[in-house]
Amino acid sequence: MAVQTVAPAADTPTVDLGPAVALSCRECGARSPLGPSFACPECFGPLEIAYDLPSGDPEALRKQIEAGPTNIWRYAPLLPVPADVASLPGLNPGWTKLVRADNLAAELGVTGGLHIKDDSGNPTHSFKDRVVAIAVQAARTFGFTTLSCSSTGNLAGAVGAAAARAGFRSCVFIPHDLEAGKVVMAAVYGGELVAIEGSYDDVNRFCSELIGDPVGEGWGFVNVNLRPYYAEGSKTLAYEICEQLGWRLPDQIVIPVASGSQLTKIDKGLKELIALGLVEEKPYRIFAAQATGCSPVAAAYKAGHDVVRPVKPDTIAKSLAIGNPADGPYVLDIARRTGGAVEDVSDAEVVDAIKLLARTEGIFAETAGGVTVGVLRKLLEKGLLDPAAETVVLNTGDGLKTLDAVAGTGPTATIRPTLASFREAGLA
Amino acid sequence: MAVQTVAPAADTPTVDLGPAVALSCRECGARSPLGPSFACPECFGPLEIAYDLPSGDPEALRKQIEAGPTNIWRYAPLLPVPADVASLPGLNPGWTKLVRADNLAAELGVTGGLHIKDDSGNPTHSFKDRVVAIAVQAARTFGFTTLSCSSTGNLAGAVGAAAARAGFRSCVFIPHDLEAGKVVMAAVYGGELVAIEGSYDDVNRFCSELIGDPVGEGWGFVNVNLRPYYAEGSKTLAYEICEQLGWRLPDQIVIPVASGSQLTKIDKGLKELIALGLVEEKPYRIFAAQATGCSPVAAAYKAGHDVVRPVKPDTIAKSLAIGNPADGPYVLDIARRTGGAVEDVSDAEVVDAIKLLARTEGIFAETAGGVTVGVLRKLLEKGLLDPAAETVVLNTGDGLKTLDAVAGTGPTATIRPTLASFREAGLA
Repeated sequence: MAVQTVAPAADTPTVDLGPAVALSCRECGARSPLGPSFACPECFGPLEIAYDLPSGDPEALRKQIEAGPTNIWRYAPLLPVPADVASLPGLNPGWTKLVRADNLAAELGVTGGLHIKDDSGNPTHSFKDRVVAIAVQAARTFGFTTLSCSSTGNLAGAVGAAAARAGFRSCVFIPHDLEAGKVVMAAVYGGELVAIEGSYDDVNRFCSELIGDPVGEGWGFVNVNLRPYYAEGSKTLAYEICEQLGWRLPDQIVIPVASGSQLTKIDKGLKELIALGLVEEKPYRIFAAQATGCSPVAAAYKAGHDVVRPVKPDTIAKSLAIGNPADGPYVLDIARRTGGAVEDVSDAEVVDAIKLLARTEGIFAETAGGVTVGVLRKLLEKGLLDPAAETVVLNTGDGLKTLDAVAGTGPTATIRPTLASFREAGLA
Repeated sequence: MAVQTVAPAADTPTVDLGPAVALSCRECGARSPLGPSFACPECFGPLEIAYDLPSGDPEALRKQIEAGPTNIWRYAPLLPVPADVASLPGLNPGWTKLVRADNLAAELGVTGGLHIKDDSGNPTHSFKDRVVAIAVQAARTFGFTTLSCSSTGNLAGAVGAAAARAGFRSCVFIPHDLEAGKVVMAAVYGGELVAIEGSYDDVNRFCSELIGDPVGEGWGFVNVNLRPYYAEGSKTLAYEICEQLGWRLPDQIVIPVASGSQLTKIDKGLKELIALGLVEEKPYRIFAAQATGCSPVAAAYKAGHDVVRPVKPDTIAKSLAIGNPADGPYVLDIARRTGGAVEDVSDAEVVDAIKLLARTEGIFAETAGGVTVGVLRKLLEKGLLDPAAETVVLNTGDGLKTLDAVAGTGPTATIRPTLASFREAGLA
C-alpha cells in the first residue's frame, strides 16, 4: 500500500459516523481524527477505525440487531455509519445465505457441520457491495462527489452500481484484461470506466498517483483514501456468520486472500462480538486461501517468513490476483495466532472445486469460491483442518462473472426435437 | 399447453402438501385428487391448486409469517408444501429486495412511489427459483427421482441447481441458441443438459411427447406434469410485495409475460391476501409487458381479441420468447378486469431500459427487466399508467445472463498507467 496521507478538506463537516470516534494506527496505535486518511501521520502505518462500541446488556443489543433490516444495516451500531443509514439511498447488501452444505460435507468427509457463506447473493453478486456501502457513507460525510477505485472487476461493478443509486459520479479503474462479464457490469451503470494497460498492481499504483494530483480532488477512492472505512464492511461477514449460527462462533473459517483486508476484518469482527458478549468466547481457527498463481502469502507462510514478497500474478482467479497484498503480514499473523494455515490451489483445482460446489450444493461460485473450496479440500487432505469441527467457507463472488473458467461446460448433447433423436443420442 | 394427463402411480404416497387439498380445473371447476396431473380429467382444462387456507385471526397469521425464515417458506401456510419444508434441503429462494426507485421515478415523472421487485437476488438469479422450489416438494411427494423441464434458460439453471442440492437427478431441455451465460449455468450443476434444434415451443412440444413415453417414467417435468404446483411459486411475489409495502396492496404492477403463468398467479396471490384479511381490499391494476418480437398477448389485447394467436418469436428477450403462451387468455382477462393493459417494446427500447434502470438505481436487469421497465415508460407516455399511483415493476432476472444485449458497453477509455496518459484521454 502506498504510504501517503490525504489531509481532510478545511470544510470537512462535523463527522457523524455512529460509533466511530477516531482513526487508529495499526502499527503504533496513534490516534488521528476521522477523515479521508489512510496512513498514520506519525509512522505511515495503515489506519483503521477506533470505536466507542455500545456497552451494557448484550441481550438488548442482540434484540436490537435482530429487529433491524435484513441487510448489513442491522449492524449499524457496530459500523462507522450514521444511525439513519438504512433510510439513505443505497444498495443495502448483506444478510446473504449461510448454506448448510451437507452434500459437500459428505463428499469431503466433514462431520462437524459445514456451511458456505454465499456472498454471490449481494446486489452486484460479490462481497464488495458490503465494503462499498460503508465507503459511500464516508464519502458522503467527507463531501466527496466522485466515487473511484482500482479494481480486479468485482469492486468496479459494486462502485458503479452504488454510485448510480446513491447519486455520485463514478470513475473506476480496471486492468485491461478482465473477464467480459465484469467489464460489462462495471460499465453498465453509466459511470466512467477506465481500462489500464497493466496489472492490478499497476492500476493501484496509478490510483495512488492520481490521488496526490489536483485531478483527484473531490474523489473518494473507496480502497485508497476511504480504505479505513471501506475495509470495515468485511466485519459484517463475521457478524452474519455468527448470528446465522445462532449467535455462536464457528470453529474454523476458510477465507480467500487478495489484499488480505477481508480476512483481517473478519477476525476483528469476531473479536468484537466476543468483547460485546454477543457470542461466547472460544478458540477459532482462521485459514487463508490463495490461488497458486498468486500466492505470496501462502509462500511466506510455508517458508516461515513474516515478510510477504510481491509476485506477478498468473491465475484464473483474477479477483484474488493482487501480487503485493497490503495486509499480507497481518494475514500471516492471524493464521499463526489462531492455529489456522495459509494454503493455495492450482487453477485446475480451482475449476474442479467450482464444479464440486455446483454439483453438491447448487451454488455456482466464481473462481475465488473455487479457491476457498479447493483449499478446504486440500487442508482436509493434509490434516490441517479438523473434519470434526464446525467449518464455514466463504464464497465471495458469482460464477456468472467468471464463465471462462468453466467454458468447457455445455450441453450433454444437441438433438432434433424427436424421441428418435433423443434415443439416438443415447439419452433414453 | 398440450392437453394430456398423467395418472399418479399406483404407489403414490399419502400426500402431505400443507394447505393444498385438491387439483381444480380453471375452466370447469371440477376437482381431482392431488397428483402429478396438469389437465382436467373432465374437460382437459388447466389444473390449479385448491387450498384449505388458514381462517381466523389475520393478525396471528401475519405474526406467524413475520417470524418465519427470510425466504419463501415464511409463506408455507399458503403454499402446496409440507409444514416442515424450511428444514428440507433446498435453495430457499425469495424475500428478494423491493427497491424504492426514487431516481427512476424522478426521471419518468412517477410521483406516487415506484418500486422494483428485484428477483435477480434469488440463488440462481431469476424468479424461477421460486417456482422450482415448490415443484421440488411436489416431486418429492410424488416419488419422482429425475427433475426435468423445457426452458428458455433461466429455468434450466434453477432446476439444475435445485436438483443438485435436493438430491435429484436432472435432465433439462433448452433451445440450441441460448445466451452463453445461461447455457453454462444450466450445465455447471452436473445434470444432463440437452440442446434442441428448434425454438422454445419446439422444446416444449418435445417434452410433452417425452412425458407420454416410457422413457419419461419417474420424471417430474416441473413445468409440465408438476405445473400446477410449480406455478404457485409465483404467488410468493405477490405476498412479498405486499408484506414489504407494510401489508398493503400496490395500486399498479407491471409484470412480464412469457407463458403468462406468473402474472395470473400474482393476481391469485393478491386475491388470497385480501380474502385472508392480510391486506385491506382496494382496486389494483395489473399491466402485462412483452417484447414486440414476441407479443402475441399484446397483439390480442390491442385488437380486442380473447384468443391469442401464436407467433414465431424474434427478440433479444429470450426468457420471454414463448410464441404460444398457455395462459395468454387469462392474462388478457386479468388486464381488462383490473383496468390494466398489455403493452410491448422493441428490442432497442429493451436495451435502453436496461441502461436506464442501471444508471438510475444500480440494478443490472436481464432483458426481461428491460421489457418491464421499457413498458413502464411506454405506458406512462401513453397515459395508460397513473404516475400518481403507487407502482411496482418486476425485474425477474439478471443482466449477467444476457450480456450480449449490452455488449457495446465497455470502458470509456483504455490508457497506460500514467497521469499523462490519463490527461491525453481527456479524462482529467
